[in-house]
Amino acid sequence: MAAIPAHLPSRAAHVSAHVLGGGGGLFPEVLGAGRAGFRALRIGAPAGLGRAAGMEIIRSNFKDNLNKVYEAIEEADFLAIDGEFSGISDGPSVSTLTNGFDTPEERYQKLKKHSMDFLLFQFGLCSFKYDHAEAKYIMKSFNFYIFPKPFNRSSPDVKFVCQSSSIDFLANQGFDFNKVFRNGIPYLNQDEERQLREQYDEKRSQANGAATLSYISPNATKCPVTIPEDQKKFIERVVEQIEDLIQNEENKNLQLEPCTGFQRKLIYQTLSWKYPKGIHVETLETEKKERYIVISKVDEEERKRREQQKQAKEQEELSDAVGFSRVIHAIANSKGHSSCFGCNNKGKLVVGHNMLLDVMHTIHQFYCPLPEDLSEFKELAACVFPRLLDTKLMASTQPFKEIINNTSLAELEKRLKEIPFNPPEVESAEGFPSYDTASEQLHEAGYDAYITGLCFISMANYLGSFLSPPKNHVSARSKLIEPFFNKLFLMRVMDIPYLNLEGPDLQPKRDHVLHVTFPKEWKTSDLYQLFSAFGNIQVSWIDDTSAFVSLSQPEQVQIAVNTSRYAESYRIQTYAEYVEKKHEEKQAKRKWTEDSWKEMERKRLKTQYTPYIPQSRYYCGNSFTATSTMGKRSMSPIQEETGSDDMEEREIQETELDETDCYAESVPEGRKRAKKFKKVKKEQDPTGSITSGSTALFEVPDTW
Amino acid sequence: MAAIPAHLPSRAAHVSAHVLGGGGGLFPEVLGAGRAGFRALRIGAPAGLGRAAGMEIIRSNFKDNLNKVYEAIEEADFLAIDGEFSGISDGPSVSTLTNGFDTPEERYQKLKKHSMDFLLFQFGLCSFKYDHAEAKYIMKSFNFYIFPKPFNRSSPDVKFVCQSSSIDFLANQGFDFNKVFRNGIPYLNQDEERQLREQYDEKRSQANGAATLSYISPNATKCPVTIPEDQKKFIERVVEQIEDLIQNEENKNLQLEPCTGFQRKLIYQTLSWKYPKGIHVETLETEKKERYIVISKVDEEERKRREQQKQAKEQEELSDAVGFSRVIHAIANSKGHSSCFGCNNKGKLVVGHNMLLDVMHTIHQFYCPLPEDLSEFKELAACVFPRLLDTKLMASTQPFKEIINNTSLAELEKRLKEIPFNPPEVESAEGFPSYDTASEQLHEAGYDAYITGLCFISMANYLGSFLSPPKNHVSARSKLIEPFFNKLFLMRVMDIPYLNLEGPDLQPKRDHVLHVTFPKEWKTSDLYQLFSAFGNIQVSWIDDTSAFVSLSQPEQVQIAVNTSRYAESYRIQTYAEYVEKKHEEKQAKRKWTEDSWKEMERKRLKTQYTPYIPQSRYYCGNSFTATSTMGKRSMSPIQEETGSDDMEEREIQETELDETDCYAESVPEGRKRAKKFKKVKKEQDPTGSITSGSTALFEVPDTW
Repeated sequence: MAAIPAHLPSRAAHVSAHVLGGGGGLFPEVLGAGRAGFRALRIGAPAGLGRAAGMEIIRSNFKDNLNKVYEAIEEADFLAIDGEFSGISDGPSVSTLTNGFDTPEERYQKLKKHSMDFLLFQFGLCSFKYDHAEAKYIMKSFNFYIFPKPFNRSSPDVKFVCQSSSIDFLANQGFDFNKVFRNGIPYLNQDEERQLREQYDEKRSQANGAATLSYISPNATKCPVTIPEDQKKFIERVVEQIEDLIQNEENKNLQLEPCTGFQRKLIYQTLSWKYPKGIHVETLETEKKERYIVISKVDEEERKRREQQKQAKEQEELSDAVGFSRVIHAIANSKGHSSCFGCNNKGKLVVGHNMLLDVMHTIHQFYCPLPEDLSEFKELAACVFPRLLDTKLMASTQPFKEIINNTSLAELEKRLKEIPFNPPEVESAEGFPSYDTASEQLHEAGYDAYITGLCFISMANYLGSFLSPPKNHVSARSKLIEPFFNKLFLMRVMDIPYLNLEGPDLQPKRDHVLHVTFPKEWKTSDLYQLFSAFGNIQVSWIDDTSAFVSLSQPEQVQIAVNTSRYAESYRIQTYAEYVEKKHEEKQAKRKWTEDSWKEMERKRLKTQYTPYIPQSRYYCGNSFTATSTMGKRSMSPIQEETGSDDMEEREIQETELDETDCYAESVPEGRKRAKKFKKVKKEQDPTGSITSGSTALFEVPDTW
Repeated sequence: MAAIPAHLPSRAAHVSAHVLGGGGGLFPEVLGAGRAGFRALRIGAPAGLGRAAGMEIIRSNFKDNLNKVYEAIEEADFLAIDGEFSGISDGPSVSTLTNGFDTPEERYQKLKKHSMDFLLFQFGLCSFKYDHAEAKYIMKSFNFYIFPKPFNRSSPDVKFVCQSSSIDFLANQGFDFNKVFRNGIPYLNQDEERQLREQYDEKRSQANGAATLSYISPNATKCPVTIPEDQKKFIERVVEQIEDLIQNEENKNLQLEPCTGFQRKLIYQTLSWKYPKGIHVETLETEKKERYIVISKVDEEERKRREQQKQAKEQEELSDAVGFSRVIHAIANSKGHSSCFGCNNKGKLVVGHNMLLDVMHTIHQFYCPLPEDLSEFKELAACVFPRLLDTKLMASTQPFKEIINNTSLAELEKRLKEIPFNPPEVESAEGFPSYDTASEQLHEAGYDAYITGLCFISMANYLGSFLSPPKNHVSARSKLIEPFFNKLFLMRVMDIPYLNLEGPDLQPKRDHVLHVTFPKEWKTSDLYQLFSAFGNIQVSWIDDTSAFVSLSQPEQVQIAVNTSRYAESYRIQTYAEYVEKKHEEKQAKRKWTEDSWKEMERKRLKTQYTPYIPQSRYYCGNSFTATSTMGKRSMSPIQEETGSDDMEEREIQETELDETDCYAESVPEGRKRAKKFKKVKKEQDPTGSITSGSTALFEVPDTW
């Protein structure tokens, strides 16, 4: 057990997080092209940074390189991932996606509703393996182009949405859309894969039993086929020809004239009944795309050979169709290092920067449509990615938050090269492209995954400096990084720094927050005016006619509500009242399915009061490892205060000339005061439901 | 007046149409990559045809070439257009889009619902001008790449859908997606343009009157600004600095420190109140994207100069934002040739191949969302495209239908080079790219527009051969082609060849048609079996559990209904019963808005019983010419029989190995018999509503 270094909090203390601004790595790059709020974030995008080539994986070289990918995953100490999407929000504005007082459940629902119709069309995967002898990481970077090319006539014809601002942003980064659409690797989710497998199985069982198949086997003799009157002559003639073929020893094959599909079906049925054995029937196509039947005499051996050939071909077709999903399966199925105590061999650590949307998209696209509730999503995520680490959350948490001002990926990477951090020693593996540090500014998922990995290494190593004796290298299996596991950064939420995948989420006190409803003509300045008696406020727009307003002191809340009692144009209620009303509305809406509501209640209570032991109902058995031991350890960085540098709560659409985008900056004192009320956060929250659980949650492990 | 040539029907006779197969020009190319039904059509796609370069118009060269485009439109004898889209149908399958017994209204509703979320991202425009001296056409071809790049923070952030199969098909054709997304020309519809114009107007009027503008003019003195307590000091300091500036003769400018948007707003308001005259306030941005205010002393002349500069810049920004829509406006506003009798100078003839979807998309994207009803759409289309001609419809109509077997664009173009047609003499205008007839197989809208124009010329000229003396050249203004005006090909509808933009649509007798409901396990063969007693039938799938079945004789209909009376697994009703029930359901659904229903009824009756005189409620006044005289002439090719080569009614998803796609071919006799029942089509239709109107409709002009 390592001694507790002086700079780190002791066991009794709480690790505190500071959600600093600057935008997330993923968000500024993909969201960057969005509206007002997101524009500002784009400033933080990589500039002057070297870009990786990565190993480009497209449809044509996917199969040849798949073993390389598997190998990289298996040997890795950790993996870094990043995705590029065709859009972020299909709502009328991006602000509908993020409100500063979203609950994790609300945020999940919003992202699920507004973001999943976009396509994840580039996936970056970077594996890092530590070479102890050389004291450096060996890195393999892959950049996958992904596109749901329909592989046959019964395959899904996927429709996906593109958002102009996102596409425009990527275009400006030199993104190669032609590569995606012409050469993207196809994929199937679990359901589609199962359906396709069943199709093949059905065909095979038909071949071994029933009527319509190319191999007519002994037990196919069922009953005569009903042939429509007008087709009888046609079929009789075919049968005659086949009799000739069978009698005649010289001829091996018989080619019938092209005919209609219905006629071909009749032929297949008739032959399977009349000639259960010894002939092979196949449909071919002329140059003019007319289909015709070829009948050949085959012996048993030849029949088996053809059957095997056919099965092998089918298996390959199936694998090709599953395509890129196989890479995600490999990550999900990967084994953690056996020397890693406490991780239960759960799978590789997967690192990402501001990765909630990446994780949701990956699951949605390559596993299954996202589940209804956040709690179900947590179970599912644990199956696909048993161990995640979000570098944006890490950088926003003690001991980093004090020394890192801007957590956008590009800025973070720069910062982590400077004192007190050390730029990590990382080298491309042999046969993998190395980096050209002064080349084009391509926006590439593989490169972003690489940079994310570098950031993780620097921060992990920095934790080693607190040990005594200090360590230069902290591995991905060190207990030092466990507090950061499975907590995903929550973009632009004021008082909840992360989504906790391993248990219930934090429930901050919001007793300084008001919910205000007003005419749609109102602007932020009207709210400032309304609350001018209360000093500095922060406004979080919900929609055109409502917003959350946080006051600097909770005591002001009741005064504000009281003084507004007789107002006509606007309405003020406390956050608690708002939540209660929303809850009631929801309940009223669901009354018609009383039972399903009870089920929900039960689930909710279970989540709140019982230890979080997920029972995975997703394909954990077959494709990835079970996670029954997950969540037993819950050591968590918590947050003490919330900056708002990256919280431009509102997409500004007023037409006030140049005066449109800086309201969020206008209350610097407000931010300072905000620190005060956040300090009471760990007290009983309004509903009193989570306090005991969350106390346990913030325990710090012995090893610290 | 020209004599009636022997081959053409006399005045009393009816011009008959034959909707032959082979797929539409637009459809096979764009739909081609789709599912089963559409796959087959792809076969007809251009092969070995020379492809045009066209003049490529992208964002960067749009403005420089716009006058060339205007000139080409103005001088043209006719225009040809073609569009490429990011998809065709967002329904679960393309078959939901087309049923062989759709009414024009139903088809319009389907296309509107399922196809308008796609992006028209390439627009081909080809102008043809006849050079009498040289006896050849001079052609100018433009190929526009189109993308809704957001032009500023308040501009619409368009979301559009992509369909994998369509994208994949275009990708295989070498379509350049990078050019679309990186260099596409932006556009605005009429509403967006109006909003943007209002924004600029508002700014300007604010500048000349109110508070928040950069030019603080005399009448801006309203009242003191309410400044929040904590901002008072800040504003006071700013005012002091400005007093200094005004006193001090040496300094012309004052640069304030960067501050928040709220503070900048306060500064603007304060200054407009305190200094109504003589200073100029402007917001600039530092390299770090911080905004700051610069104040300068200006005299009246300088003020005016700056004001004008600013207005000119705004006007240019507005034009840039309207972008490609200006081309469509130019087409809509174009004047027909003054020597053209009867066309009332209504606008250029615009030719397209299978152009319904092109017309709908063009209007939807560059004018306004499509209206509720087909009748309103007809009015709107008359505003944007006063005179349309569909070469697929023309080729499917007498006297062409007898000698043209395949009306897909590529096949048609080939056919029209052979006897009895003459390949037209067409040459690129000077300075325009000419054609490389053996180069790449790019799928290019400009090229398809060009080919469409060639087809029109050949067919128009062929009509001249019937005149005495025969004419080699028939102009786009000839009465000979008027019967083909404003009738758009209706893809895959069995008994209605076209959508009539100039009046009510044809209402064919469907007394040989049954509507059948059955278990979702049923396949086409089950229906054949069910109706085996009735000879050959044609099946048009509606959805998984229903289809239209047409029998060869109307007399059989009642027998079928009677014999099925006690069936349990399926249900048969006549087409008339089905329509009535659907009508009742619709009525029940709308009962809650009794008035709106009455309004609809009124509209419907009006359409059916009164002469069709559209009252255009769309922006006809400003942007395009009024159309009050439209529709007075209704000479119409009608159809006598319906082939089904391109009517693969159902997307086949059965997993019957190779036995899946040929049912439609399986009733060759059925097709022949179909001719018989179609011959009674001109009798009273079941509802009796349209007969008198349609008789007038089929009159053939004296000039024939």
